[in-house]
Amino acid sequence: MSKKYVYTFGAGKAEGNATMKLLLGGGLNETTIEGIIKKSGNERFAWDAYRRFVQMYGDVVLNMKPESKEEEDPFEVIIDQVKEKNGITLDTELVPADLKELVALFKAEIKKRTGYEFPTEPWEQLWGSISAVFGSWNNPRALTYRKLNKIPPDWGTAVNVQAMVFGNMGDDCATGVAFTRDPATGENKFYGEYLVNAQGEDVVAGTRTPQPVNETTKSDPSHKTLEEIMPEAYKELEGIYKKLEEHYRDMQDIEFTIQKGRLWMLQTRSGKRTAAAAVRIAVEMVKEELLKKEEAIMSIDPEQLDQLLHPTFDPKADKNIITTGLPASPGAATGRIVFHADDAEEWAERGENTILVRIETSPEDIGGMNVAEGILTALGGMTSHAAVVARGMGTCCVAGCGELQVSYKNRTMTVNSKVYKEGDWISLDGSKGEVIEGKVPTIDPELSGDFGELMSWADEVRKLNIRTNADTPHDSSVARNFGAEGIGLCRTEHMFFEGDRIKAVREMILADDEAGRRKALDKLLPYQREDFYGIFKAMHDLPVTVRTLDPPLHEFLPHEEQNQEEMAKELGITAAEVKAKVDSLHEINPMLGHRGCRLGISYPEITEMQVRAIMESACRLTKEGVTVYPEIMIPLIGTKAELANQREVVVRVAEQVQKEMNIKVNYMVGTMIEIPRAALTADEVAEEAEFFSFGTNDLTQMTFGFSRDDAGKFLKEYYEEGILTEDPFQTLDQTGVGQLVKIAIEKGRKVKPDLKIGICGEHGGDPKSVGFCHRVGMNYVSCSPYRVPIARLAAAQEALHGEK
Amino acid sequence: MSKKYVYTFGAGKAEGNATMKLLLGGGLNETTIEGIIKKSGNERFAWDAYRRFVQMYGDVVLNMKPESKEEEDPFEVIIDQVKEKNGITLDTELVPADLKELVALFKAEIKKRTGYEFPTEPWEQLWGSISAVFGSWNNPRALTYRKLNKIPPDWGTAVNVQAMVFGNMGDDCATGVAFTRDPATGENKFYGEYLVNAQGEDVVAGTRTPQPVNETTKSDPSHKTLEEIMPEAYKELEGIYKKLEEHYRDMQDIEFTIQKGRLWMLQTRSGKRTAAAAVRIAVEMVKEELLKKEEAIMSIDPEQLDQLLHPTFDPKADKNIITTGLPASPGAATGRIVFHADDAEEWAERGENTILVRIETSPEDIGGMNVAEGILTALGGMTSHAAVVARGMGTCCVAGCGELQVSYKNRTMTVNSKVYKEGDWISLDGSKGEVIEGKVPTIDPELSGDFGELMSWADEVRKLNIRTNADTPHDSSVARNFGAEGIGLCRTEHMFFEGDRIKAVREMILADDEAGRRKALDKLLPYQREDFYGIFKAMHDLPVTVRTLDPPLHEFLPHEEQNQEEMAKELGITAAEVKAKVDSLHEINPMLGHRGCRLGISYPEITEMQVRAIMESACRLTKEGVTVYPEIMIPLIGTKAELANQREVVVRVAEQVQKEMNIKVNYMVGTMIEIPRAALTADEVAEEAEFFSFGTNDLTQMTFGFSRDDAGKFLKEYYEEGILTEDPFQTLDQTGVGQLVKIAIEKGRKVKPDLKIGICGEHGGDPKSVGFCHRVGMNYVSCSPYRVPIARLAAAQEALHGEK
Repeated sequence: MSKKYVYTFGAGKAEGNATMKLLLGGGLNETTIEGIIKKSGNERFAWDAYRRFVQMYGDVVLNMKPESKEEEDPFEVIIDQVKEKNGITLDTELVPADLKELVALFKAEIKKRTGYEFPTEPWEQLWGSISAVFGSWNNPRALTYRKLNKIPPDWGTAVNVQAMVFGNMGDDCATGVAFTRDPATGENKFYGEYLVNAQGEDVVAGTRTPQPVNETTKSDPSHKTLEEIMPEAYKELEGIYKKLEEHYRDMQDIEFTIQKGRLWMLQTRSGKRTAAAAVRIAVEMVKEELLKKEEAIMSIDPEQLDQLLHPTFDPKADKNIITTGLPASPGAATGRIVFHADDAEEWAERGENTILVRIETSPEDIGGMNVAEGILTALGGMTSHAAVVARGMGTCCVAGCGELQVSYKNRTMTVNSKVYKEGDWISLDGSKGEVIEGKVPTIDPELSGDFGELMSWADEVRKLNIRTNADTPHDSSVARNFGAEGIGLCRTEHMFFEGDRIKAVREMILADDEAGRRKALDKLLPYQREDFYGIFKAMHDLPVTVRTLDPPLHEFLPHEEQNQEEMAKELGITAAEVKAKVDSLHEINPMLGHRGCRLGISYPEITEMQVRAIMESACRLTKEGVTVYPEIMIPLIGTKAELANQREVVVRVAEQVQKEMNIKVNYMVGTMIEIPRAALTADEVAEEAEFFSFGTNDLTQMTFGFSRDDAGKFLKEYYEEGILTEDPFQTLDQTGVGQLVKIAIEKGRKVKPDLKIGICGEHGGDPKSVGFCHRVGMNYVSCSPYRVPIARLAAAQEALHGEK
Repeated sequence: MSKKYVYTFGAGKAEGNATMKLLLGGGLNETTIEGIIKKSGNERFAWDAYRRFVQMYGDVVLNMKPESKEEEDPFEVIIDQVKEKNGITLDTELVPADLKELVALFKAEIKKRTGYEFPTEPWEQLWGSISAVFGSWNNPRALTYRKLNKIPPDWGTAVNVQAMVFGNMGDDCATGVAFTRDPATGENKFYGEYLVNAQGEDVVAGTRTPQPVNETTKSDPSHKTLEEIMPEAYKELEGIYKKLEEHYRDMQDIEFTIQKGRLWMLQTRSGKRTAAAAVRIAVEMVKEELLKKEEAIMSIDPEQLDQLLHPTFDPKADKNIITTGLPASPGAATGRIVFHADDAEEWAERGENTILVRIETSPEDIGGMNVAEGILTALGGMTSHAAVVARGMGTCCVAGCGELQVSYKNRTMTVNSKVYKEGDWISLDGSKGEVIEGKVPTIDPELSGDFGELMSWADEVRKLNIRTNADTPHDSSVARNFGAEGIGLCRTEHMFFEGDRIKAVREMILADDEAGRRKALDKLLPYQREDFYGIFKAMHDLPVTVRTLDPPLHEFLPHEEQNQEEMAKELGITAAEVKAKVDSLHEINPMLGHRGCRLGISYPEITEMQVRAIMESACRLTKEGVTVYPEIMIPLIGTKAELANQREVVVRVAEQVQKEMNIKVNYMVGTMIEIPRAALTADEVAEEAEFFSFGTNDLTQMTFGFSRDDAGKFLKEYYEEGILTEDPFQTLDQTGVGQLVKIAIEKGRKVKPDLKIGICGEHGGDPKSVGFCHRVGMNYVSCSPYRVPIARLAAAQEALHGEK
């Protein structure tokens, strides 16, 4: 590079979207300025360029910034002083002499504040700038960007050094940005904006209105297109964008400058686009023979599909956002505030749309959560009860909304001292975490033809089966429509809360002996039988994995005094008896307490009732000519003996029921692998199991020693300190937890080479984790209904990735 | 075997003490009885033998038992009827005809009740008996015995068939039992009892007073010794016992019968003995050249040594046992009942001995637990807070005493409706779990010369170092006296509770910002510095591993309203503020919450203070010429990044202090391996660690998914159902948790071949687990002071075992 060149440089990394952009002019000093004046014939332009350079270099390289948040930018202060002195108000009124003065004043101020003599030697400027770019990799903005986009810090950055061109040398100059296709819809049309006699920043700064590059982009008839005013440059640009798209075989986001009639390309990169655009572009590019089907599949970010699968607020609507929380479950919901789950149910019965607002939710709230349009909580993270259940239901949820103060007593929520009462309308944007005052109109998702086509291509190549986690016939049908090939996790505890059932459940818990428990369980049997009948029917011809009761019994009892009194009245006992039972079931660490198979071992009659319900409905459907594949799954086992104990109960009752009903059903018995010890001793466990299903939520909790309910507090600091780069509850920790998964698969298949293996933790819907599941040889992943398409695409991508 | 033989048979297994004994006569019928009458010339003897045989065979083989608990033994009912009919009261008054009638009546009753014709064919009788013996392996008594003695069910049993001899054929017959040495003291003297004209069961049944075999055994001058009345048989017996002892090279427990002047040996086996006897016999046998030193070491059960290391109640004293609980921490204690930890401290100050009685204990009680003579709890298992802390302190503890009802309000405890008030005297036997009314005199342990000698032999052969878990200079000295070679775990949280410190700790927790926390920590620094000064000094020349703060902060705050008010008053804030803090620190699963290194990462100033205290005292001692080896240990890490974060703090402060004090100290930084993920990623973790210490308590909790605080409820059922055969918190689960230990050692040493590795969980004092630690290549185990000798012996045994 010659010393005489004026240059710009920027930083970026070709991989992924991890581009960090930082542009600096440079190579300017009193000597080169003279050259520019001669070349451009424009003294003001040259001195203004120099002024801008000194200002930006001082800021970015020499780090001259305001000393406090209150202080103004020192450069702007100097500019204002000069303008005042000369009695002018606009920057554009500054004449070359003013600008020259500003350069001198800036340099003096820099010297005064930072101690640096402003470098006039271009090489020194260049190295200073290069260092600044490298240094910018670790500035706070970059850290935040990386965190949001899950970019590892060790990727580092690159530095580009380019010769400088100017779009602001006169009216034969221009600069613009364009997309080779419409980034909102994906439509195949060239789409861009430009400004005459301007620099790139003027286009984006909004001080002048950019003009459309062509007719297709034009919205205002008074605008002049680039095509019209500089037809030759436009024609050249058209040729180049087509070449670029053909070369990169992707929609491009380009920047260009026209300097004195000559077109210069500054940058091209793959353009950001909406999910709908991404799908349309990929499918159309296959039809245009620009891409192969496999490449089209690889071109879509599975995570982005989420946008397409939930209703969204009309982007044109006005929104008064009163606060934001975590985007816990995507979707858009509008409804009237209620504060209690049973109110939500009551209001729903009379046809009201509600938003259930809670400090946090518990399994008791399940009925209300199920009927509410949306859920809003003050506490809890992305993996809180509210968030997990809402995602499972496909219900919109904003969680952990710190500014929200909820008073159950007054039935109010207060945000920044504004009080909202029960019955007030609010709206939630679960994809953005926004809480909005009043009603906002929504638009329904359209799973367009392009989407269906892309999915069918994905299904052709993927090896993993995709199942869903669903507990109701409705959820099962939704998931089946989304392409689910079975149920990987049907939780039975949710079924215990609905309607009158909870009464029988509580009777069972309060019973003094087995006889009392059996009496209560007999009442539950018909309900459970109907539950399974509906689910098996909805999933006909596909396997359904049913997990026996998992949560600790105290979750089914009320913890508030008033509710305990109500319950006592219902059951005809004293409130003290209820309280005594609640106390005796209290656990210090319920997550590691009396739950999962430990319940079934203590109370085999519970397992018996559940197996009977499963098998009776399976037998009935078989008689009705419906093919069913029940898979009975025992949770939380850590030893072979636990599984053997429960397997004996399952097989005994299953055989009994088939004999009674005189029909055979294909059923399997298997287990969750969610305790580290189960993974470590999977060879022993496999002797009693026909399938494994990794419960990676609990496995992650125990492998990390993190309680999902409590870890939110310190995990935030962990991300900030870079101790963790990803949330291990969202993306499977392949380094640690993944080892246990691998060990279990290896040991399990050593004993039973055909062991069916899947995953039913939240990770089953996370693209990265789906990739891992493919690589370690699982048969299927299971995720919430609304993530089934995402998992299908991720599985296809990993299959293609493996082929390479 | 000829049909004519009369036989006995019994069952046993040679390995260990897993002997099950079951003796049956047999080979008797009308024909063989005639032969016996001829041979013995004693008709009554023959028919009585037949009667006994039918009765026992009916019971054991044909399973004729009372149908309910209320019903009497049907055989005894028949005997009573026959006696009544004949007008006699004693069994001995039954004449041959009566006995003959009984045989017939018994057989008829058996036929009636069981449907079985009593077999008269000896071969059929023999096979029936053999089957009964094999079957007895799974009877409830055997199950209980195996559970208590940790014998796996798959060992199975053997059956011996022997010809029968009779000690009850007349006055030239006798039967007896003897020990080749005194089983209480170990003294080398032949020690036994016998009866003339009797069968073995008569000696043990207590209906006739057994006589001493020789002068040494004699205590009553009126008794006749076997030596006196049957000198020839005695002399032969003497020759045989010496031969047997020489052959087996162990003290023997023998049974013999003299039939018509001829001596028959029925059985010999290694005799049960007290710990004191075991040690004395082993040491003396080495001196007698019967055993090699290595064999003497192997002959002692390390677990049994526990008996020798705590004061015990005088066995001669009368004891009114009012209830029993779990033998949570051995020892004998007498004191006055108090119900609150601070009362214990107050009473101790005025010189009272107390027994602290609690529903359960918490870390807040530590002060009171420390000064109490003994601890009694109504709830909690062998691994409850009370039990663990008590064992660590060497304080006697009876835990989980179910019959105990404690009223803190009334300051009473009620056992079986008897009420004991504050101030009443009780005694606890921590080795047996007994709660005794009033005072019981104790005797102190004597670590006799034999004990010391045996330990020195053990030290010569063992490879493992033995450290101790100690948190005070006093405990450190006790452990050192017991042979500890360093401290493997010095918990710093106990230090936070004493005296005024808790106030500063609470100030720190309540502080709003870092500055406030630092201010409070500054107050703690001098205390901590003195703590470490004392401990390092007591352990001069030996390494001391100090763990930084581990428990969640809420453990340091009061949970009861009254205490919160007191605290608020002390700190000059409102009770509401205290309550708000307590609530904000509340966790659903504190075990998996904000604790361990997670605290140090959130509040590096806590780690800084602790490291400063450690290093300042280490530097001071070094200046005073005392050699110290502090090892700073970070708890609860699951990722390399966590350790790196805390290591940076430790090294920074440690270097700073050394610079300030101008002296160098050898210190190390390492980590606990107690989270499954840390074990799985030990290669990464090792890069930041100079040592590993396995925290197998937490590792077991997380690997099994068991909360120690809550698992008691269902673990009981697990043992009963045979799902677990051993308590994984007492004996390391080698199958599951052990795999993680092995993985971590292998991966850690791959990165750092010289990585120092130990264990500091409770398992460090369990002989079986010590064996495992030796085999997997650890450098040391660390256990509570009172278990150090046990670990020394266990380590020696494993080293010898490995050599074989």
